Amino acid sequence: MGSKQTDRREFLKQGAALAGAAALGATAKSATAQLPGPEAQLPGTDELVAYGKRSRFVTSKRIPHGGRPSPDVFGLDFHIATPLQDTYGVITPSSLHYIGTTRGSFVPDIDPAKHRLMIHGMVDNPLVFTMEELKRLPSVTRLHFIECAGNRANSRHVTVQETHGMTSCAEWTGVLLSTLLEEAGVQDGGDWIVAEGVEEVKGASSIPMTKAMDDCIVAYAMNGEPVRPQQGFPLRLLAPGGEGILNVKWLRRIKVVDQFYMTYNDYGHLRQDPADAALSLQIGPKSVITSPSGGQQLPGAGFYEVSGLAWSGGGRVARVEVTTDGGRTWFDADIRGEAHPMAHTRFSFNWTWDGQQCELQSRCIDELGQVQPSREEASQFWVQTEGQSPRVKGQDNSIQPWRVERDGSVHNAIA
Amino acid sequence: MGSKQTDRREFLKQGAALAGAAALGATAKSATAQLPGPEAQLPGTDELVAYGKRSRFVTSKRIPHGGRPSPDVFGLDFHIATPLQDTYGVITPSSLHYIGTTRGSFVPDIDPAKHRLMIHGMVDNPLVFTMEELKRLPSVTRLHFIECAGNRANSRHVTVQETHGMTSCAEWTGVLLSTLLEEAGVQDGGDWIVAEGVEEVKGASSIPMTKAMDDCIVAYAMNGEPVRPQQGFPLRLLAPGGEGILNVKWLRRIKVVDQFYMTYNDYGHLRQDPADAALSLQIGPKSVITSPSGGQQLPGAGFYEVSGLAWSGGGRVARVEVTTDGGRTWFDADIRGEAHPMAHTRFSFNWTWDGQQCELQSRCIDELGQVQPSREEASQFWVQTEGQSPRVKGQDNSIQPWRVERDGSVHNAIA
Repeated sequence: MGSKQTDRREFLKQGAALAGAAALGATAKSATAQLPGPEAQLPGTDELVAYGKRSRFVTSKRIPHGGRPSPDVFGLDFHIATPLQDTYGVITPSSLHYIGTTRGSFVPDIDPAKHRLMIHGMVDNPLVFTMEELKRLPSVTRLHFIECAGNRANSRHVTVQETHGMTSCAEWTGVLLSTLLEEAGVQDGGDWIVAEGVEEVKGASSIPMTKAMDDCIVAYAMNGEPVRPQQGFPLRLLAPGGEGILNVKWLRRIKVVDQFYMTYNDYGHLRQDPADAALSLQIGPKSVITSPSGGQQLPGAGFYEVSGLAWSGGGRVARVEVTTDGGRTWFDADIRGEAHPMAHTRFSFNWTWDGQQCELQSRCIDELGQVQPSREEASQFWVQTEGQSPRVKGQDNSIQPWRVERDGSVHNAIA
Repeated sequence: MGSKQTDRREFLKQGAALAGAAALGATAKSATAQLPGPEAQLPGTDELVAYGKRSRFVTSKRIPHGGRPSPDVFGLDFHIATPLQDTYGVITPSSLHYIGTTRGSFVPDIDPAKHRLMIHGMVDNPLVFTMEELKRLPSVTRLHFIECAGNRANSRHVTVQETHGMTSCAEWTGVLLSTLLEEAGVQDGGDWIVAEGVEEVKGASSIPMTKAMDDCIVAYAMNGEPVRPQQGFPLRLLAPGGEGILNVKWLRRIKVVDQFYMTYNDYGHLRQDPADAALSLQIGPKSVITSPSGGQQLPGAGFYEVSGLAWSGGGRVARVEVTTDGGRTWFDADIRGEAHPMAHTRFSFNWTWDGQQCELQSRCIDELGQVQPSREEASQFWVQTEGQSPRVKGQDNSIQPWRVERDGSVHNAIA
């Protein structure tokens, strides 16, 4: 775990890298040189005033996860992946936030004036809240990632959207679940909750009361506006650091119960032992390089900022390391901005590519000291299910390798 | 400056407030009570996969600033205000970010593959960068507000969108301007820059070199995706904490010069003395309560979270105070999340309204110790221009009062 790295000061001294064939910033022939102008003026429409849009030259889009060609053939499974290769910073634009549902492309069209949230079960005072009532309560605003437990890479994937696109990060605003539970009065023995959304068959998740009282949020806003329909409008449960399925969309009932209840949501991690099931819910320390990443093309040798995302269900990202030689030597990456608990954290590493074949990897170390494992380390937990390719038991948080060829092409290096 | 306040623990003890007519959370009649269901399933379209949209029940929109009815009659002036009353947390959704231009609704439709940024003037090595080259350089991601110097309230304004909607906040990603200037090599005496965008008549701003080298960003992304066209796609200069006009959109030339150059941008603050002009560029400490705010209606006495935004061009928000009796007593508000330098900071204050007429205000104290002034304090800087209503010289960062009537209606209390 070395600390030597090319920092910005060193970069600025690298005149050679900038003067070469891949010079960043061509010499201006004269100070009055003509620069290309705009194509044309955008047409004036109401969107110019009321609600703006992105440029027609920006075409980043979500894609079905797992290689399915269109939503028409999904059947029960509707999983849509974020274009991580095209995102910047740590906020995922709400329009590009990943989606995981089990009931096709079902998106309930809920009138917030009619929506209610019920707190019931083992409580002294069962309560029903309107949206306006919830918004009068003390709120929190926090940056949190969500990740599907099925966010795992295989050798057939080409891009980082395919390998890791089932995670996104947003600024969530809402009421702490603890505020509502304390108001309702949890009875002795109420050690779990079951959170239920409007979604028919994937609408409930069992969550330990300790987690529910710790940092779960009943969220009515994301990224500064009401939660989007595909993310649970008007109300979503945030269970920070827990696997995606716990973050129940279109939330309408929270029942306090005495034990883990197995629901349809648990299809992904059926366990005989409820304690074992509970412990499997936290996302492990994880990271991935988003640039350069699979399918991208480096124009030539020279300076590049290696950039990526790191996150952990265990808390803050403490450190990220990057290797450019397939794991023989590791360097500390820079953490860009503040590392927030259970939030995507942007890292970067100043790299001068010598034009030779090489392999880039990143690994995350969280504030608990948990280290993201290599695929080899993680493979001891892999299970083989008949008729399926080998898969990791629970989440797969193993290191993602990208191979850079001499021609500048970047490839998924999973064997 | 008192410190007594109703914190969450105290709130939870306020059983009376919750049991009254305005109880937050009605008692559930039975644990199996029927809750309203969704209206219908949203139609399945490509947007369900590629790029999601907001709910049809969410209709927040920007409005023309200054009461003009439509863009058709703007003439030269196109100023569009953010619905601050409908935003949450500190991220302004990019679709709702305020806009200030002088050239009507002009939005250049720029092909990023053809766009170039030139660094020229008093530099050793004039440079021209493509967008791809800029994206290879070391980047930063930072939360920053932008505010129009004309963001000032008057007694005719009804809502907070009208009084304060010409400020927004986003997560910006790009290259520090210092990186580019150091690469170009600033010559002795190059004490200022003039930044020029594609916009025809409002396309240049003079900025001191000390500011340019400190924290200005050549930004290619906002809120996780490329900068929106109305915000300068593909490149915007961020001059954190400086008045809005310095944050040049559609950036294409930065010229290093020897002095402040007066450009069309300076129409708002023409000064005889260049030093005076330079010093007028920093936004003062400011805050406003967004809920409850003008035009809103409280359903009755009881508990409310008072929520608002604070910001300063001088650095981090250190403290926000709230009064509910028109300024006789002040209480510390809670800062929600992390206060970032030159960024909107969300504050909140737990308040139980007794149903009587009262006046809410907030004031910001930044890390430099600068205190947001009352309108009376600020009025000593007001100037009267013939044919216009009285205005504050430079920015108006004075305190905004909201009056709550006994019927729960909320009004702009500026006399």
